[in-house]
Amino acid sequence: MNWLDMQGQQRNYVLALDFGGTKLAAGIVDLHTGRIVVQKRFATDHTSAQKNLEQMIQAGKELLGEPTSETILGVGISFGGPIEPDRRQIIRSMHVPGWENIALPEIISNAFQLPAVMDNDANLASLGEWRFGSGQGTNHMVYIQVSTGIGAGLILNSRLYRGTGLAGEFGHLTVMIDGPPCTCGKRGCVESFAAGWAIARDGRQAVLDYGDKTLLYSQVEGNPDLVTARHVIEGARAGDLVARSIVSQAFTFLGIGIANAINLLCPEQVVLGGGVTKAGELMLQPIMSALDGHLLPSLSRPRLTSSILGDAATLFGAVALVEQELN
Amino acid sequence: MNWLDMQGQQRNYVLALDFGGTKLAAGIVDLHTGRIVVQKRFATDHTSAQKNLEQMIQAGKELLGEPTSETILGVGISFGGPIEPDRRQIIRSMHVPGWENIALPEIISNAFQLPAVMDNDANLASLGEWRFGSGQGTNHMVYIQVSTGIGAGLILNSRLYRGTGLAGEFGHLTVMIDGPPCTCGKRGCVESFAAGWAIARDGRQAVLDYGDKTLLYSQVEGNPDLVTARHVIEGARAGDLVARSIVSQAFTFLGIGIANAINLLCPEQVVLGGGVTKAGELMLQPIMSALDGHLLPSLSRPRLTSSILGDAATLFGAVALVEQELN
Repeated sequence: MNWLDMQGQQRNYVLALDFGGTKLAAGIVDLHTGRIVVQKRFATDHTSAQKNLEQMIQAGKELLGEPTSETILGVGISFGGPIEPDRRQIIRSMHVPGWENIALPEIISNAFQLPAVMDNDANLASLGEWRFGSGQGTNHMVYIQVSTGIGAGLILNSRLYRGTGLAGEFGHLTVMIDGPPCTCGKRGCVESFAAGWAIARDGRQAVLDYGDKTLLYSQVEGNPDLVTARHVIEGARAGDLVARSIVSQAFTFLGIGIANAINLLCPEQVVLGGGVTKAGELMLQPIMSALDGHLLPSLSRPRLTSSILGDAATLFGAVALVEQELN
Repeated sequence: MNWLDMQGQQRNYVLALDFGGTKLAAGIVDLHTGRIVVQKRFATDHTSAQKNLEQMIQAGKELLGEPTSETILGVGISFGGPIEPDRRQIIRSMHVPGWENIALPEIISNAFQLPAVMDNDANLASLGEWRFGSGQGTNHMVYIQVSTGIGAGLILNSRLYRGTGLAGEFGHLTVMIDGPPCTCGKRGCVESFAAGWAIARDGRQAVLDYGDKTLLYSQVEGNPDLVTARHVIEGARAGDLVARSIVSQAFTFLGIGIANAINLLCPEQVVLGGGVTKAGELMLQPIMSALDGHLLPSLSRPRLTSSILGDAATLFGAVALVEQELN
């Protein structure tokens, strides 16, 4: 059955738009079941925000067909970059020029003649996993996404918690005073050990320090500038002790951060997502040790799970955002 | 006007009972204005839970007079010690024997023939400061009480946040891996640096290490076992460098913990209470430095204030608890 057959019935569908750094996705999703009716995914045009916008509106209109809005409750927008605390404007994109001060929800709302709401990708991946993924049925869930950077989202009392706007900066909890410099300007953040860029940094340094005594050297044919987090994790998986030591340190500090978040928030579940979680057992073991050492012993230990929605978590989060704010 | 004159009107009053470690307090408080109509404060009988209970019920009945319940909405109970996550039973008191498994709200409810609700003192001091004290009008507030131990309470979205039961264990955030042993069994907690007991421990060690080269030595006439946190803070205030160094370290680590709580929760306000906050400027300066170093630069900085209710915060919190749960 085509979704257009639902016209005249309740507004059970959401148009979800995901502006990622390197790709765009648009989908029409059943609000209640999370079923994706139709979707499109395509590479981001890197030349300008204007091009991104045209691509996305074009895609949305193709998905919706004509007439557009009969069964659509609203549009949920995920943006992969910093947005204003009131969620009406983009601050910037790290990947595409021209996004500064763009009032994305207003533009989208006008283009589709539908109400539109927006949040950043970390918050929406969190909301997506909670509503349609690994965290279903919980009241309190912490989502942590470990990829190039570290993002997080807090679901507290079954709502996305934002505080005064930017709550959930898990990646910038200090876990070592005077630790390594972080992208944020301070030192010893969780991110400065466990983000993809930090693991890559330590891998590069290891090639410089140990030369061909580490497998990393041959992985990048001796060129330290080529080392990525993926090399380090692959090296560790292949048994290289230097790579193992880097990975173990990274995820120990990630685990200390997680323990601190649990000590403060007592969630029922912690969900880990993002590319770096592909490290699997190499990641889990140091995290579990860190929890043993740093969780308050009297606390009940939350479930620790992986994201099950993967890259689609943000799109599903955009659906859940419409449900929470426009329903 | 006596509160009894209000009979027949709305149930605008709360009987608040505060079972502290060393003192008991009972009061009848106007739910809307926070005005204390009548109250009693007295020392805790340390011999048994049963004696405490009898003292408190007796005091409550004297305050209420007869007939008792016409204008009273319910009873709010603060307990100074660990309670079960469902808040129906005491786990234990650190000061008075016999509290194990006592169903305090049920006993109080039966004694006064009124609904009764309970929470621990840290949560209720937080709720009291938010509703009637320094945090009035905020949506998101973190309360931190620094006395012999360190307690905390989180007001998120204008509600006391409990997570799965024990949320707010701020005192047990790890701020230094392999730091000093803590009372909880782990190491390097905020409490292991900044709680009264930790400051006293460092003061004792200083007397052993430096002898009469520190003012602390003469403060306790050379007996390290007599050193308390108060001595160390007084010594620091008098300019003793050893005492200053202890205080500075303690509050630097407290500040790092506060920075981490802010990074995660983005509250509008952080309220500091408890005896140790009497250190004033000696406390504020290292906390502010730690915030400069460890807050994510892009976050808006919350107000930092002192508790204005002091010891009465828990009693007012018991009033606010009735308002949130029985109104």
